[in-house]
Amino acid sequence: MALTIAEELAEKQKEISIAEFFERNRHILGFDTLSRALVTSVKEAVDNSLDACEEANIIPDIYIEIDKIGKDEYRIIAEDNGPGIVKRQIPKVFGQLLYGSRFHTLRQSRGQQGIGISGVVMYSQLTTGRPAKILSKIGPNEPAHLYNLIIDTKRNRPEILREEMVPWDKDVGTRLEVVVKGKYAREKRQSVLEYLKSTAMINPHAQIIFREPNGTTTEFERVSDKMPQLPTEIKPHPEGCEMGTVLKMAKETESLKLLSFLINEFSRIGTRTAKEICSKAFLDEDQRPQDISRGQAKRLLQSFQSVKIMAPPTDCLSPLGEVLIKRGIKKEIIADMVATATRPASVYSGNPFQVEAGIAYGGDLPKEQVGKLTRFANRVPLLYQQGDCAITKAIGSIDWRRYGLEQRGGEGLPVGPVVFLVHVASTNVPYTSESKEAIADILEIRGEVALALRECGRRMLLHIKKNERLQKLKEKEEIIKKILPLIAEKTAKVLDRPIPDIAPVVAKIMDSVLINGEQDFSEGFYHIRLDATNYTLNSKSFNLYLRIPKTVLVEGVTPQPDGVEDGLLQWKLRLEPNGLAHISLRLGGLEQGDYDMVECYVDKIDPEKVMGAEMWNGGLI
Amino acid sequence: MALTIAEELAEKQKEISIAEFFERNRHILGFDTLSRALVTSVKEAVDNSLDACEEANIIPDIYIEIDKIGKDEYRIIAEDNGPGIVKRQIPKVFGQLLYGSRFHTLRQSRGQQGIGISGVVMYSQLTTGRPAKILSKIGPNEPAHLYNLIIDTKRNRPEILREEMVPWDKDVGTRLEVVVKGKYAREKRQSVLEYLKSTAMINPHAQIIFREPNGTTTEFERVSDKMPQLPTEIKPHPEGCEMGTVLKMAKETESLKLLSFLINEFSRIGTRTAKEICSKAFLDEDQRPQDISRGQAKRLLQSFQSVKIMAPPTDCLSPLGEVLIKRGIKKEIIADMVATATRPASVYSGNPFQVEAGIAYGGDLPKEQVGKLTRFANRVPLLYQQGDCAITKAIGSIDWRRYGLEQRGGEGLPVGPVVFLVHVASTNVPYTSESKEAIADILEIRGEVALALRECGRRMLLHIKKNERLQKLKEKEEIIKKILPLIAEKTAKVLDRPIPDIAPVVAKIMDSVLINGEQDFSEGFYHIRLDATNYTLNSKSFNLYLRIPKTVLVEGVTPQPDGVEDGLLQWKLRLEPNGLAHISLRLGGLEQGDYDMVECYVDKIDPEKVMGAEMWNGGLI
Repeated sequence: MALTIAEELAEKQKEISIAEFFERNRHILGFDTLSRALVTSVKEAVDNSLDACEEANIIPDIYIEIDKIGKDEYRIIAEDNGPGIVKRQIPKVFGQLLYGSRFHTLRQSRGQQGIGISGVVMYSQLTTGRPAKILSKIGPNEPAHLYNLIIDTKRNRPEILREEMVPWDKDVGTRLEVVVKGKYAREKRQSVLEYLKSTAMINPHAQIIFREPNGTTTEFERVSDKMPQLPTEIKPHPEGCEMGTVLKMAKETESLKLLSFLINEFSRIGTRTAKEICSKAFLDEDQRPQDISRGQAKRLLQSFQSVKIMAPPTDCLSPLGEVLIKRGIKKEIIADMVATATRPASVYSGNPFQVEAGIAYGGDLPKEQVGKLTRFANRVPLLYQQGDCAITKAIGSIDWRRYGLEQRGGEGLPVGPVVFLVHVASTNVPYTSESKEAIADILEIRGEVALALRECGRRMLLHIKKNERLQKLKEKEEIIKKILPLIAEKTAKVLDRPIPDIAPVVAKIMDSVLINGEQDFSEGFYHIRLDATNYTLNSKSFNLYLRIPKTVLVEGVTPQPDGVEDGLLQWKLRLEPNGLAHISLRLGGLEQGDYDMVECYVDKIDPEKVMGAEMWNGGLI
Repeated sequence: MALTIAEELAEKQKEISIAEFFERNRHILGFDTLSRALVTSVKEAVDNSLDACEEANIIPDIYIEIDKIGKDEYRIIAEDNGPGIVKRQIPKVFGQLLYGSRFHTLRQSRGQQGIGISGVVMYSQLTTGRPAKILSKIGPNEPAHLYNLIIDTKRNRPEILREEMVPWDKDVGTRLEVVVKGKYAREKRQSVLEYLKSTAMINPHAQIIFREPNGTTTEFERVSDKMPQLPTEIKPHPEGCEMGTVLKMAKETESLKLLSFLINEFSRIGTRTAKEICSKAFLDEDQRPQDISRGQAKRLLQSFQSVKIMAPPTDCLSPLGEVLIKRGIKKEIIADMVATATRPASVYSGNPFQVEAGIAYGGDLPKEQVGKLTRFANRVPLLYQQGDCAITKAIGSIDWRRYGLEQRGGEGLPVGPVVFLVHVASTNVPYTSESKEAIADILEIRGEVALALRECGRRMLLHIKKNERLQKLKEKEEIIKKILPLIAEKTAKVLDRPIPDIAPVVAKIMDSVLINGEQDFSEGFYHIRLDATNYTLNSKSFNLYLRIPKTVLVEGVTPQPDGVEDGLLQWKLRLEPNGLAHISLRLGGLEQGDYDMVECYVDKIDPEKVMGAEMWNGGLI
């Protein structure tokens, strides 16, 4: 009987097409609810447009339109001015799952897998039975090609229903039109509008126009004409490479010798390092890589770990930078302070990645609510599946009570007037599923996110404490400066003696160098003033440092700084007792709200004798 | 320039193999951390073995062994007594992703997609470079076939390294051996041991032997020799079918007329219903289904919604049942009470599904902690990705403060001494990703889970309140019965009059029929006693109902009940003032802890006059 059953079962065993699989499991692609289906459809189209424009070095103009055409039926139009798609590739790009240009390239991009946009086409035909209409033009003197197509899910191949050349009054670009089952929601966090708003915010070079079903048109204007640097393509980094990957690479390489294989196929391995790796692994530099055995590959991997290899290059990554992080947070709230941190690039399983984070505290945020979290991956806002994201887990693993927030049992999202923003950039963001809404719980990534957030947490706490101290000091200064002269005057009068010089007394009571930093924004500039007053009995020499955002315009610095680096200015000051120093400058290229906290540091001075500035812990200058 | 770029990009656009995709994104298959990799590997093997045994009607004997063979390297052996796999299919089943027997079948099973076990083989070769070894035998007089193979990920095809016939002293079965990179953890919630323990618990017909790396061998003994009913295969249910699905089915059907198409290809459509559907959709019954247009299909879909169609059959599903739910909960805690609920089968997108739930409260659980959650889908324990599961979201959407638990802002997992268990059974569980650890947030499923949990919540609250009331009543009864006679005696003595009959006075004060239910477990039986006492001034006739677990052995019922249904006994009682009724019975086939709360109900009596039983709200007898 068992025999019959094995044979019976064998009859049923067959190949499943990837399209059939996703047709059945479309929720994995992000089509699990009607409102999310609209967000996912728009997102896939916009991701593709932004990627294509970036690759072609075209400043993106994107038009999105959603029209209601029936009960729960919406037409989505997505049009860009990207490079277009050549005729023969149009059907496959839109009508075949797992077909794309970015999978075999190690470079940060939004799309990667060649699933997204074909998934939209499939969802459209599944729910409304309608074909997708694609129009694309690759140059001013080229014809525009129109395709109406569906996906033959049994074979995972496009089925072309109509194909013709049509006039299009556009030089170059692509236009997609699909009709999907959906629900249009305007609510705050998870909506097409919110997704586009966030996307425009972190892609300041893009112009996005969005027409909603009710006719409202929102223009997200281009803020910058500068394209972000196109991340460069890289080779796998040896750190974190798996046995299977190395064996496969060795088998497929065109290099004839192990040494050249290592140099040609890996990132950050030069001749010297390659020789060291071979020697430590007891391997012949001239060995044919194709013949490498499992045992030899294992020694090679161990050698990768023991030889010092430079961290992967970061030009394959395109981080947001401090200013965009702050804007991302400010979009959510008006906060008292924002702290940001950017980690150096790191590696998981051979993939470089980099984490940036920001925390905003205070302001108009409710104190009794769970902190809000804004997540980005490769410059794409993540709106869904927050609960299962490595970012959320990293936040939950930190004891925020140490940073002044309320948190049940010291784990989970903390409660308080706080907003977190985290961006993970990688050549291969490990999403938990094809809908690309949550980052898998990879140890290295969770660790880097936690480090970035802890750094923000420390600076948040520092800022809060410093503000409290400064407040007290200012009160003290005021009292001393107002009341002591009055006492001196009164006493002198009563005793009929001359009014004494009270400056040394003030200095004795204050016994500090007081640093005060202020900023205000007017006429497109941040005007910054730093005052240092020596309320001690001795002359003081020290260094004063001012942290400013990187890559901003710095003008009118008086006096000239003694040291300058990107993001830092340094002055060597010498103040006699009761001496004052004024420093002023202005910062351009920022918007109001981008720079809300004058961060200054000192060194070469007894920390006990300074108020209003933290000690500089070295590093830069 | 743009032209060149479109052409340049076209060069890079190419097909991606599904195996390459998962090789890069193996975290999607559940291989994101080293310890989870071991759990996932074992889980995929066990799921396959249990499914195969069920299909072949073989009582499963499963052996799992994990050995440490190097730093972070483990050998996993998984052996079953299933039907075996025919020679020609072995390489494809283990060496090709998206190859399987259960995808095209609408029936509840653990595996579905033909991805899982090939994913394990791929992870193994990727991390340790070692091939998988498979041994399978389909009958006592058949040879056993041994294969060593890896996956050619570029083509998603098995690459056979060794293939031979070997002797195997087993009649029938399959054995898999892989070496994977992993970390063996014994910690409580997310470990191989815990997964196997849960699996054995809800598969009482399976015997599982597990040998851990340290040599400890745990035998999860078979508790029942009865195979669970093999769920039957069904056709899609019209409710929830999508436009695309209907169009595809119509195109591919062998039926020549619309009427027979509807009857043959859908679940729950008979001739009468089919005729009604056609008439409401203004469609000709004799129309060729292959010619159906989009507009006609739309009318058909609308007609599906307006015609009354029976709910889908439930014999395609295999729910756990009350007893297994209780055992599942009791494994976690010793609780004061457990309430369970089973929802009727429902449908999402044409897929039948059914939800069962249980809540345990009190006992030795900490009061200050977030409630624990145990999730199952198709009889498989879900250990990871709890945060993003529809079950978790359903719990979070209920205001548990109404059911006596603490909950911040009335959302999220509540705090208190409480454990939730939820099982979702479906012909197609919509997992959020291929690792099958979280259920997607489908509206219908979330709704059913919430309904089941609310029902449990209500019964939990009822029970707690009832217990409180009963406690007070008993105190009252005791006081009255002890003190009143003393007062009567004393008063009579003082007044030198005869002691009066105080029974009518007691009745006047109590003025209730008091129902008291008790149980204890001894010698393999639950012994149940019900006492009813009429503490009123009039005779009372009413029905008393006792809820018992379904499908248990009921013995020695005295007096004979007046009504019997599966899960319910009924007695018609008549009690004179001060009259008593004793009922006793015993329940067999249960383990200690399976029945912890005597649930009795009454009707045909003024609710104000009853203590110790809720009003029966009808339904059964």
